[in-house]
Amino acid sequence: MAEENNQYTFEHETYRKTYWHTCSHILAQAMKRLHPDVKLAIGPAIDNGFYYDFDTPEPFSESQLEELEAEMRKICKEKLKLERFELPRADALAFMEEKDEPYKVELIRDLPEDAVISFYRQGDFTDLCAGPHLDSTGRVKGNGIKLTACNAAYWRGDSSRKQLQRIYGIAFPKKDELDAWVAKREEALKRDHNKLGRELEYFTTVDVIGQGLPVMLPKGARVIQVLQRWVEDEEQKRGYLLTKTPLMAKSDLYKISGHWDHYLDGMFVLGDPHDETRECFALRPMTCPFQYQVYLNRARSYRDLPMRLGETSTLFRNEDSGEMHGLIRVRQFTISEGHLVLRPEQLEEEFKGCLDLAKYCLGTVGLLDKCTFRFSQWDPANPNNKYEGTAEQWELAQATMAKILDDLDVTYTIGIDEAAFYGPKLDIQYRNVYGKEDTLVTIQIDMLLAKQFGMEYTDADGQKKTPYIIHRTSLGCYERTLAYLIEEYAGALPAWMAPEQVRVLPVTDRACDYAAEVARRLEGEGLRATADYRNEKIGKKIREATLEKVPYMLVVGDRDMEHQTVSVRHRSGEDLGAMSQSDFLALLQDEVERKCIK
Amino acid sequence: MAEENNQYTFEHETYRKTYWHTCSHILAQAMKRLHPDVKLAIGPAIDNGFYYDFDTPEPFSESQLEELEAEMRKICKEKLKLERFELPRADALAFMEEKDEPYKVELIRDLPEDAVISFYRQGDFTDLCAGPHLDSTGRVKGNGIKLTACNAAYWRGDSSRKQLQRIYGIAFPKKDELDAWVAKREEALKRDHNKLGRELEYFTTVDVIGQGLPVMLPKGARVIQVLQRWVEDEEQKRGYLLTKTPLMAKSDLYKISGHWDHYLDGMFVLGDPHDETRECFALRPMTCPFQYQVYLNRARSYRDLPMRLGETSTLFRNEDSGEMHGLIRVRQFTISEGHLVLRPEQLEEEFKGCLDLAKYCLGTVGLLDKCTFRFSQWDPANPNNKYEGTAEQWELAQATMAKILDDLDVTYTIGIDEAAFYGPKLDIQYRNVYGKEDTLVTIQIDMLLAKQFGMEYTDADGQKKTPYIIHRTSLGCYERTLAYLIEEYAGALPAWMAPEQVRVLPVTDRACDYAAEVARRLEGEGLRATADYRNEKIGKKIREATLEKVPYMLVVGDRDMEHQTVSVRHRSGEDLGAMSQSDFLALLQDEVERKCIK
Repeated sequence: MAEENNQYTFEHETYRKTYWHTCSHILAQAMKRLHPDVKLAIGPAIDNGFYYDFDTPEPFSESQLEELEAEMRKICKEKLKLERFELPRADALAFMEEKDEPYKVELIRDLPEDAVISFYRQGDFTDLCAGPHLDSTGRVKGNGIKLTACNAAYWRGDSSRKQLQRIYGIAFPKKDELDAWVAKREEALKRDHNKLGRELEYFTTVDVIGQGLPVMLPKGARVIQVLQRWVEDEEQKRGYLLTKTPLMAKSDLYKISGHWDHYLDGMFVLGDPHDETRECFALRPMTCPFQYQVYLNRARSYRDLPMRLGETSTLFRNEDSGEMHGLIRVRQFTISEGHLVLRPEQLEEEFKGCLDLAKYCLGTVGLLDKCTFRFSQWDPANPNNKYEGTAEQWELAQATMAKILDDLDVTYTIGIDEAAFYGPKLDIQYRNVYGKEDTLVTIQIDMLLAKQFGMEYTDADGQKKTPYIIHRTSLGCYERTLAYLIEEYAGALPAWMAPEQVRVLPVTDRACDYAAEVARRLEGEGLRATADYRNEKIGKKIREATLEKVPYMLVVGDRDMEHQTVSVRHRSGEDLGAMSQSDFLALLQDEVERKCIK
Repeated sequence: MAEENNQYTFEHETYRKTYWHTCSHILAQAMKRLHPDVKLAIGPAIDNGFYYDFDTPEPFSESQLEELEAEMRKICKEKLKLERFELPRADALAFMEEKDEPYKVELIRDLPEDAVISFYRQGDFTDLCAGPHLDSTGRVKGNGIKLTACNAAYWRGDSSRKQLQRIYGIAFPKKDELDAWVAKREEALKRDHNKLGRELEYFTTVDVIGQGLPVMLPKGARVIQVLQRWVEDEEQKRGYLLTKTPLMAKSDLYKISGHWDHYLDGMFVLGDPHDETRECFALRPMTCPFQYQVYLNRARSYRDLPMRLGETSTLFRNEDSGEMHGLIRVRQFTISEGHLVLRPEQLEEEFKGCLDLAKYCLGTVGLLDKCTFRFSQWDPANPNNKYEGTAEQWELAQATMAKILDDLDVTYTIGIDEAAFYGPKLDIQYRNVYGKEDTLVTIQIDMLLAKQFGMEYTDADGQKKTPYIIHRTSLGCYERTLAYLIEEYAGALPAWMAPEQVRVLPVTDRACDYAAEVARRLEGEGLRATADYRNEKIGKKIREATLEKVPYMLVVGDRDMEHQTVSVRHRSGEDLGAMSQSDFLALLQDEVERKCIK
């Protein structure tokens, strides 16, 4: 196996993971040499490097990690051969019991009685392992290794079991690749919305409120207001009808929609979900069954279709504590959720409209270029618990969607077992600064739920027929979008969406009245302007406004008062010189109007 | 007693209720004469007439109510004397057992052993009653009586007890007063938002979602969007900072704020509120403790105050089923909720600003003239369970508020035991079409909660001080406001807030393209316009748009196409004649800009 892998290059995922897996063994070997009492748990390769979990009460310090790195480099230089061997289960147990490695013993005990168990040996170190591995520690470049972090982690991810210490590492075959990675990671840390978004006071979290429930501070709330109004207006232009439906409902509603059977774990329930004798409410995880009630409010004819319903919708998902991350994965979020009810023959045209809207929205905020498309399908091997409907219905929905995507020339990957419980999805994916991918926008075809809700229309031939439904979002949830925008622009949001577009900076106390006049005029024109009247040096005021990523600073002094001008400075450092108030107003209004992202 | 009452006029509430109470006895007497087997429950006077609950399986029909009215008129003509007498409890029991009136027996049984029990006799009829009453059925004007409705009602309001039939009635000493009342009630029924708002498709309710959780249909959602954006923008102009805080929190937050001790019954709790070992979340009934976290996000100086925080906030109140009414009393609503954090010396000025904003908002939508002001105070007699803080703190807060209200020349009534648990309130009250009063806007002074949350500011003297807080709303919750607007304008909302401002009505198929062009132009200018392309007679199109209360209809035919004009018709029936598209656009834009309410 190892030999085969040598034929691959590091760019190839299989080879890369093998390389990193061998690194994790080298880390464990270094650990046993420096800290022989530390017990070994598990050490896999992951998408971005490798880790190893060790049982030791204290986390490892920065300097301990450096000592381990040094020992790892030594092991690489020793060019130890990696040899695979197998033992019957009983012998394997005895081998690890003798080495006093209780976690390895537990892992072997969980294997079947008749299992043949493989190990990898390199010099003085042997680990229980399925492989594959490189053939020698010499194939790993010692100075291409870096141990990046040490965190607590529960044995087998179970919070009732022992807390271990997990050391993360990364490794590349060339030192300059590592350097590039480190530089990129430092840049990512600078852009990380979970750090930068707090520093810039876009949002915060508070213990007494709880995890996954971010508090949007005035700057974050203002950006979301701007985005939300823009999306609502764009949807209205495209023929959407706005709705405003309740955030909770009796279990009765979710029993019709299938959420009670397929999504209960992800929902917040008020009352006992298993007590049939009492009224039980639940917060909504999706808008669909609520928006269908709008359709159901009166009899519909084929002339009413397509009916495009849009809502700025708040949703609740009971995510696990471990899943939460800043504004990207939260327990409550707001999203431009919509449903299109349509005649089957309108499906392709309307799907195209949804995709066009999503591309317009993502393009306008500047995120589209980095998006990828995933065609999320059901898993035919495991249909019964997770999905509504029959295999035939799924095949039809997926074949229809495949045809539409091909007709629209969409390049996509396929995600098996990633569908919604009621139908296949086109997911538009985005990666955060650390490379972690999440769904930003989704467009879904649903041939099932209209029937369950008794939604009908009278066709031109007088027959009652069941419509199809498209579930879709325009921009993705506002919290997650804001997170990606902060990371994409390193906090310097384009002027059209910036919470504060202009800060007027009087040079002297004398100029304060004029500064106020300028700020008021800008505000009167619908721009977001403030003034900094503090008795501070102008250099300090400029520095602070620049750090706060305010797009434009208008420095005003005696000469500006006299000539009714403003001296314009961009946060990039560019000095645009003195200009009339009207010229600056025209400049900024044009930038806002055109929704410039540069 | 009865003699005394005769000295009062019908305008006097005590006399009026006595009059109606006697009417309820006359109703019961008429019932026993016509339906001797029907059992009597209770029959009080209420704010708007009287009722009597009868035990009989079927509700009474319209014609049965008329027969009862006729019999009541006969009893009035008989001029029966009402005589009070008293019996010891045992004799009273025997008396009602002999009459086979089980509900009266139950009522007597619940009285103390030594009670002396009063009855009122009028001819062949005697009822258990505390009185007082008129001295003769002849004092009631027979043709001033009307039985208005018959509904089901549970015995003693307990849904586990027997369902009775409740007959409602009204009565006046003069026939023309009754006629005026009936006319007014018919007008109220026409304006009732709970009827008209559904017919005009502003909202609906759905059994599977639940009571008190209205679904806003596109028209209702659009009005709320218009109002919400206007209020948000007005607040921003007045120096408010927008926030967006979570809709739920751990019980920890509510324990600090006092909601857990004083408001738990009104809250929706996720999990067991009495289980201290598990995390317990609750939906928020108010925004206060959430918005305080924005203040707490960093250290504040006296220069930061007043800090005005505003939010378009969704709140949840676990109202009793019996309390729910249309859009006026609901379990989930959206409100422009704000909190001002301020130095004590800023209190009067900021309170004035809040009152000015509320008056501006209510005046602009056209509801201010009918509003009344209530100064809601605590109840010093029952402070311990319901209110936070000491008597001294309450006296200070109420004295401060009284002074401010007097300085501002506000005319108010006093509501004892109507305060918030943390402080006194100025409530701006409004009555629905039936005369039922509810709070629309509230401005509250809070000298307690800032301390509980550890909110501080550094004053000019370097000392840490505790700020005061004003809790306030601008317009009142959007659902309730919409209800009052529908009732105030009988559904014909002013053009600036109307969900559909213009409907273009092509006279012929030939004019459809031109109609589309006109509608597009209006929409391009930010107006809400549609076109009715159906192949229907123009008269029918006009009739429907008028019934749907669309402010302007633009009838377009061949001549309009030729001259690029539109023939303008107002929903009032007024014909404004043909005018250029630009003239109509200017006319409507001016009306919208000025927020005309006529």
